Amino acid sequence: MPNELKEKHLDQSIDLTAEEWVHFEKKSLNEECGLFGVWGHPAAARLTYFGLHALQHRGQEGAGILVNDNGMMKRHRGLGLVTEVFRDEKDIEKLTGSATIGHVRYATAGGSDLNNIQPFHFDFHDGALGLAHNGNLTNATTLRCELEKSGAIFSSNSDTEILMHLIRRSHHPEFMGRVKEALNTVQGGFAYLIMTKDSIIAALDPNGFRPLSIGKMSNGAIVVASETCAFDVVGAIWIQDVQPGEIIEINDKGIHVERFTEKTNTTICSMEYIYFARPDSNIAGVNVHTARKRSGRILAQEARIDADIVIGVPNSSLSAASGYAEESGLPYEMGLIKNQYVARTFIQPTQELREQGVRMKLSAVRGVVEGKRVIMVDDSIVRGTTSRRIVRLLKDAGATEVHVAIASPAIKYPCFYGIDIQDRDELIAASHTNEEICEIIGADSLNFLSQDGLVEAIGHDKLCLAYFDGNYPTPLYDYEEEYLDSLRKNVVKL
Amino acid sequence: MPNELKEKHLDQSIDLTAEEWVHFEKKSLNEECGLFGVWGHPAAARLTYFGLHALQHRGQEGAGILVNDNGMMKRHRGLGLVTEVFRDEKDIEKLTGSATIGHVRYATAGGSDLNNIQPFHFDFHDGALGLAHNGNLTNATTLRCELEKSGAIFSSNSDTEILMHLIRRSHHPEFMGRVKEALNTVQGGFAYLIMTKDSIIAALDPNGFRPLSIGKMSNGAIVVASETCAFDVVGAIWIQDVQPGEIIEINDKGIHVERFTEKTNTTICSMEYIYFARPDSNIAGVNVHTARKRSGRILAQEARIDADIVIGVPNSSLSAASGYAEESGLPYEMGLIKNQYVARTFIQPTQELREQGVRMKLSAVRGVVEGKRVIMVDDSIVRGTTSRRIVRLLKDAGATEVHVAIASPAIKYPCFYGIDIQDRDELIAASHTNEEICEIIGADSLNFLSQDGLVEAIGHDKLCLAYFDGNYPTPLYDYEEEYLDSLRKNVVKL
Amino acid sequence: MPNELKEKHLDQSIDLTAEEWVHFEKKSLNEECGLFGVWGHPAAARLTYFGLHALQHRGQEGAGILVNDNGMMKRHRGLGLVTEVFRDEKDIEKLTGSATIGHVRYATAGGSDLNNIQPFHFDFHDGALGLAHNGNLTNATTLRCELEKSGAIFSSNSDTEILMHLIRRSHHPEFMGRVKEALNTVQGGFAYLIMTKDSIIAALDPNGFRPLSIGKMSNGAIVVASETCAFDVVGAIWIQDVQPGEIIEINDKGIHVERFTEKTNTTICSMEYIYFARPDSNIAGVNVHTARKRSGRILAQEARIDADIVIGVPNSSLSAASGYAEESGLPYEMGLIKNQYVARTFIQPTQELREQGVRMKLSAVRGVVEGKRVIMVDDSIVRGTTSRRIVRLLKDAGATEVHVAIASPAIKYPCFYGIDIQDRDELIAASHTNEEICEIIGADSLNFLSQDGLVEAIGHDKLCLAYFDGNYPTPLYDYEEEYLDSLRKNVVKL
Amino acid sequence: MPNELKEKHLDQSIDLTAEEWVHFEKKSLNEECGLFGVWGHPAAARLTYFGLHALQHRGQEGAGILVNDNGMMKRHRGLGLVTEVFRDEKDIEKLTGSATIGHVRYATAGGSDLNNIQPFHFDFHDGALGLAHNGNLTNATTLRCELEKSGAIFSSNSDTEILMHLIRRSHHPEFMGRVKEALNTVQGGFAYLIMTKDSIIAALDPNGFRPLSIGKMSNGAIVVASETCAFDVVGAIWIQDVQPGEIIEINDKGIHVERFTEKTNTTICSMEYIYFARPDSNIAGVNVHTARKRSGRILAQEARIDADIVIGVPNSSLSAASGYAEESGLPYEMGLIKNQYVARTFIQPTQELREQGVRMKLSAVRGVVEGKRVIMVDDSIVRGTTSRRIVRLLKDAGATEVHVAIASPAIKYPCFYGIDIQDRDELIAASHTNEEICEIIGADSLNFLSQDGLVEAIGHDKLCLAYFDGNYPTPLYDYEEEYLDSLRKNVVKL
Repeated sequence: MPNELKEKHLDQSIDLTAEEWVHFEKKSLNEECGLFGVWGHPAAARLTYFGLHALQHRGQEGAGILVNDNGMMKRHRGLGLVTEVFRDEKDIEKLTGSATIGHVRYATAGGSDLNNIQPFHFDFHDGALGLAHNGNLTNATTLRCELEKSGAIFSSNSDTEILMHLIRRSHHPEFMGRVKEALNTVQGGFAYLIMTKDSIIAALDPNGFRPLSIGKMSNGAIVVASETCAFDVVGAIWIQDVQPGEIIEINDKGIHVERFTEKTNTTICSMEYIYFARPDSNIAGVNVHTARKRSGRILAQEARIDADIVIGVPNSSLSAASGYAEESGLPYEMGLIKNQYVARTFIQPTQELREQGVRMKLSAVRGVVEGKRVIMVDDSIVRGTTSRRIVRLLKDAGATEVHVAIASPAIKYPCFYGIDIQDRDELIAASHTNEEICEIIGADSLNFLSQDGLVEAIGHDKLCLAYFDGNYPTPLYDYEEEYLDSLRKNVVKL
Repeated sequence: MPNELKEKHLDQSIDLTAEEWVHFEKKSLNEECGLFGVWGHPAAARLTYFGLHALQHRGQEGAGILVNDNGMMKRHRGLGLVTEVFRDEKDIEKLTGSATIGHVRYATAGGSDLNNIQPFHFDFHDGALGLAHNGNLTNATTLRCELEKSGAIFSSNSDTEILMHLIRRSHHPEFMGRVKEALNTVQGGFAYLIMTKDSIIAALDPNGFRPLSIGKMSNGAIVVASETCAFDVVGAIWIQDVQPGEIIEINDKGIHVERFTEKTNTTICSMEYIYFARPDSNIAGVNVHTARKRSGRILAQEARIDADIVIGVPNSSLSAASGYAEESGLPYEMGLIKNQYVARTFIQPTQELREQGVRMKLSAVRGVVEGKRVIMVDDSIVRGTTSRRIVRLLKDAGATEVHVAIASPAIKYPCFYGIDIQDRDELIAASHTNEEICEIIGADSLNFLSQDGLVEAIGHDKLCLAYFDGNYPTPLYDYEEEYLDSLRKNVVKL
Repeated sequence: MPNELKEKHLDQSIDLTAEEWVHFEKKSLNEECGLFGVWGHPAAARLTYFGLHALQHRGQEGAGILVNDNGMMKRHRGLGLVTEVFRDEKDIEKLTGSATIGHVRYATAGGSDLNNIQPFHFDFHDGALGLAHNGNLTNATTLRCELEKSGAIFSSNSDTEILMHLIRRSHHPEFMGRVKEALNTVQGGFAYLIMTKDSIIAALDPNGFRPLSIGKMSNGAIVVASETCAFDVVGAIWIQDVQPGEIIEINDKGIHVERFTEKTNTTICSMEYIYFARPDSNIAGVNVHTARKRSGRILAQEARIDADIVIGVPNSSLSAASGYAEESGLPYEMGLIKNQYVARTFIQPTQELREQGVRMKLSAVRGVVEGKRVIMVDDSIVRGTTSRRIVRLLKDAGATEVHVAIASPAIKYPCFYGIDIQDRDELIAASHTNEEICEIIGADSLNFLSQDGLVEAIGHDKLCLAYFDGNYPTPLYDYEEEYLDSLRKNVVKL
Repeated sequence: MPNELKEKHLDQSIDLTAEEWVHFEKKSLNEECGLFGVWGHPAAARLTYFGLHALQHRGQEGAGILVNDNGMMKRHRGLGLVTEVFRDEKDIEKLTGSATIGHVRYATAGGSDLNNIQPFHFDFHDGALGLAHNGNLTNATTLRCELEKSGAIFSSNSDTEILMHLIRRSHHPEFMGRVKEALNTVQGGFAYLIMTKDSIIAALDPNGFRPLSIGKMSNGAIVVASETCAFDVVGAIWIQDVQPGEIIEINDKGIHVERFTEKTNTTICSMEYIYFARPDSNIAGVNVHTARKRSGRILAQEARIDADIVIGVPNSSLSAASGYAEESGLPYEMGLIKNQYVARTFIQPTQELREQGVRMKLSAVRGVVEGKRVIMVDDSIVRGTTSRRIVRLLKDAGATEVHVAIASPAIKYPCFYGIDIQDRDELIAASHTNEEICEIIGADSLNFLSQDGLVEAIGHDKLCLAYFDGNYPTPLYDYEEEYLDSLRKNVVKL
């Protein structure tokens, strides 16, 4: 790596304000949204509160619950965490009714707007409808523009509304027919929950990028959730996953499964296994913690680093680190501590204070790492900023060597199906070699898990691996041009 | 154990409301307060904000910072977490000045009152003084009563004020002399920070129950903190611990160490190592994570249980669990997950929902424990309620056996030096045999670490172990009667 | 009046809860909304904050400002008073830009929803638009239903959105043409402000029910406001009123006046003069305080009551009362005092406390009214509840006689053009004779101003007087049926 | 007046920031605190809430209620208005008990501190006590210093605490004896309410500077209040005033009146009549509105100005203005309007905007004053700033002449008994002639009511008139030096 390039990177981050640090961290890798729905339970809103709290890691910008009380829909939503939006017992109590759809929304960069908080609630003269969405449409811009040209007015910036406009403009005589038409018009990654006055409808895109599962409670109530960890918290038992291309109607008659398309090709987002999902969730039958621990084991076999101790970056990399430690026979130590209390760093007047500010979130344990050769296991590298900072923390605390071992392949391509990495310029591995990255982050060595190793760890290959190899499983529609542009900009490094 | 007794315990907890669950959890074992002070740094308040945040685990009821701005003292304090009390940049900015004392206060049962939030700030016609305290006095009731009889008015319910009344009533001609007189009058466990217009004074009781350390920043500023983890976050280096019986004056001339008594006997609270302190702190030179991991190793040697996997109760028992796993050769797995988002459970209308409510905080990982014989490592048992609940979570998730291994001896005696366990009735081990406890919590086996094992794990014996063996290192003064009463009530079981 | 009827009324009100009292008071007579806009001032948002505050009496449910910053629109809105919505300097500061439209919204009964707070802000692929509205459409239900049938989705319950759907669906090639088409489709009372990227458009219904005026600042900036009192507060000078049927485009070229219809018939809402508008506003060139004072004078000539003192009900009736006092030669006294601090009465456990609760807002001055024959001047009677309460307050304070003199005719018919009196059942004068009302409110005499007297006091007859005589100046469209129903229910009393 | 002096004044005010405007307005003339207590009513706290709300004009910084629930005292207090401190029904509900003392505190300049909010609540080992205070001690500094020298610690900056220290240090065998000793030690203006476990004690200084009255409810409950207006709001009847030098014990045996001194000399603060008290209160049997109206009548006789209309400055001068109008035969008009909604002016970037900002509070009614010679009646002039501003508002709105008529004599001397005018530098009349003031405020003429006229209007001469003539009815103790200094500074003008 040319020195000027390295310097530029270092300069940039030294010039970072505290806000930029926070922004970087927030932007690193984030999942867009979590869904939870209940049919047939007298305490539906309360269960949804529990369920959304279990899915809180999928989105912290806002939360909402829409409840169906014998045909009358009521909603409570707001900006912030589930516990911030639902502050009082009465916020739950007023949501009487036995069916709900709920949503947690991911914090997008820039200003957040209450208008975008889901579920959406539409009051029509012929009855109310509710809608919640997890994912990203690849033809949203085109569809929205066409709809506006024919008089449609959108009330939010969210792609989610598009589906409702398509449904309302369909001329199919049956409601389910109108929904199917709409589902065949939108493209990309999507899991939808729709609430009608006598049912909840769940639908998943033909690739099944996002997880969506159905569970049952002991009283017969049906629950739907983005992750199975939300079933445990309400005492529900998993019964089936929503399959790609399925549209499932849940009502008093039970669970009615249909397909809106036969052209399906399962490619589950591999990032759900690597980073997003909670370790206690199962996706397509595979436990996430177990997959991560296996990825650590395989990484240890592939990397074969000589060192004294293994540590994980809390919290998402602890599973992989313990797998690495067990396979390598090295002790698994707590070399980094995450402060369990959320910090605000404010604006720091000097760089020295800024650096101290960021230590509020993560501390190196001097008593553990001092004088040791450390293998630091992390789940992924996006920009490299965080890794560089942690390596420095460890060396400041006396580690003699820091070997970075990443339990996934290098991320080189953006995602267009619902993960917030759409700009290749932000991906350090898109334009740098392993050696360059290793130098930038200040590590003594850097190893990534191989793509084969990842597939082996997860245990099946029905995966979207486009972040690593650029093989997108669908056409990119509105993003095609953006993608090609980004390739051109980094043409030399590929 | 007689069946009626067991039933009584089970009935009690089944009748627990959600609020009682929360109360129990909060009350289980809590440390009272953390201290942080700075001398000689232009951003003293900001550093103190960082430092208190690192000490947040020592108290969540309230926080405050008192700053000395060239002799003028200003204070900001409030109820809640550090980040709730200091919400805006201006809350910090207005605290200009180069010296501070700061405090985080532990959440006592019952109503909290802003009046009790420290540091205290006294405005006298002859100059202002500040005071902050960690610990518990054993002769507070007697002293307060005597002082009131001679006209003193207390403005809070806190013991802390007593020291200031003693100082102000002393007739010693020197301020330091007055402070020493006062320190020799109070009894029990105490670490004090006093702010005068030209110094910070730190003092520790003759037994050194509570930790208190001094560090130095690169610009020469001196910091004082209850735990060394707060040094790392502000970039300070540890230089010395405050020793039992010492009174240390920090001012522009440097650090001046004196003693207020020669009658010292170091007995550091062993609970700091077992449960309270952050793993990245060093107490008396011993790293807390390392001591805990060793306690897990020794426990594995002592217990020798046949099982498939080892899991820790997050977060405080993870070190011990990994030590246990390494020593036993069993895999260390993530069998329990703590939701990183704080939950509020509200009032739940039914027992079923209450149970689901408590699952919001801790989930068993079905994919990990199903069909497995599990060793569940925890740091301590107080009432047994929490253990019983976690054992049930694990069995509900499919664990075939749950062996509870506690990385400390059984707690049978109350603490009077600053930990909130003053009622023997609350201590399950005070009135039950191991077999009875094992049955109550529903475990397949129950093992405690031996007292010798604990001392070996920590690596020195200058410890207060009264919780385990009742050998209090000082007279109990106002608590003597209370203690004897409690012994009488449980006389058979001892 | 039959005694049983009277008793029923008394019983009803005695059974009123404190909340019902509050509700009644709030519902009595309320104006729906105030508008304020600026074109061409660098501090446009700040001026709008001042202007909306001056119009706060026209609506307290919510407020908002939409600003145009060189084509980029930004909005801040919220529930509550202007000062509650704009709490911090930064709420104003962030609204950079030289053009604004602002809105205060009236508190409707039932739940309030942030979605309904104006101005509305629409983001289209071909540019943003803003919209704010004061008034009530009489064909809203019909239009909304038709629009939804052709696929339109509404994002609020407000009638205001309808205009935007009509504009967007118009096929006229010019934007102004599309707006004119839309204005000719909606019926009823409306004053609109529309913001485009290069202009503000103001429009008034063909009857001019609501006031809307244009002013100029010393730097050439143009302001638009519902009432002229808002001009004074920003230092603007009135230059013209928006006339019925006019659509006025304000941009960098100046003020361009057009008409969207020639079929106009000016009938200004007489309630603006009687009750709603601020005394320092001029409507159609007539000062509101002066009109009210004249109404008091004419009322004194018509009523000719023998008494000792004249008092007004604060604050809206003080002008009329002083006119009455001067004409009658009786002293004008402060017999009633309104507490200038807003009170909340909470839920009162007993009727005795409820009565005391309501006294928090209005007190009789015993030292003034004791032993006196009092003429109590009020602006209007809606339900009679408030009058009955005030008469009782005065008698409790020792007034020997209370003569109620109302400075407007009796209200017998609902309003469909933007005032919240749509139910004749709520209008005591719709179903009771003067004598019955007098008995119900417990007064010694009751006089209303004659309709001719009102016209004389205001000084012109381009007024809507339908509340008094039922002569609605337009067809009622969607309300026709509702109106006829209400007539039938009270058929005997008319 | 020399031009340079005038210019200086004008410059000063032109340089005023918006915050200074606000500060000036707030500081102009303010009463320090209001008291309300109840003995023997099951809803005591609720009544106190009503009573404090009626006394809100006496203090807006904070409010509190201390309740005695069978010997257990509970308190709720906070910063802000009564309705801000008591936000929820539960804030009242939790204050069960049949006796209360309550307090509203005046907003002092500078930072406000919750510690100073009353009632104070003291927990002693021998029982709790409560204390609330209205007034100002003249020997507080001396007493506090002496007490501190003997070891006393104060918990607030308030003078109020002093009394409790004196009580606790008294060696009198009886509690009432200790209180009497303490009352004879403090000097100045004071009205106290003390709560013991079985009584409420009310006491008034030997001059009776502050009003304090006792009332009775229909159920026999006793209420105490700073002003009689608070009786009306709770349905109580006035029965007696607390007389100077009295100490009154209220308990289950009834009302027991004693004296703590025989050396009394009644000199009620004349400002209570002129400005502070609510018009519906009676002080020493004189209705405040009536006294003000009479002062307006006498002012009209004394001033004899030729003009077209009379207007009052809302709200405190409306009574005097209507008296002036009636006596002069000129019409009483609404020439100024106070916006009933509280405004916040924020920081205004330019002087032009600052001026507009201040108009948010008070508007001139152009339609009324344009082309008219106006007599503007106000109650008093402190700094002249407000008067200058209002004169300008009226002239900007077209008044051809503005004659300022002040319904009290010129204020030349500070108050040391509880009103916030302690600095002669702030009193424009202390250093300027009438002609100079007239020029500074830009009026066409300026008249003050004569001192004899004031006494005639109030109807008795048991008044403190020191603000006007410097004849203080008591020694000034700690303020003696300050007062003499202030005289020296303005020596020429006296």
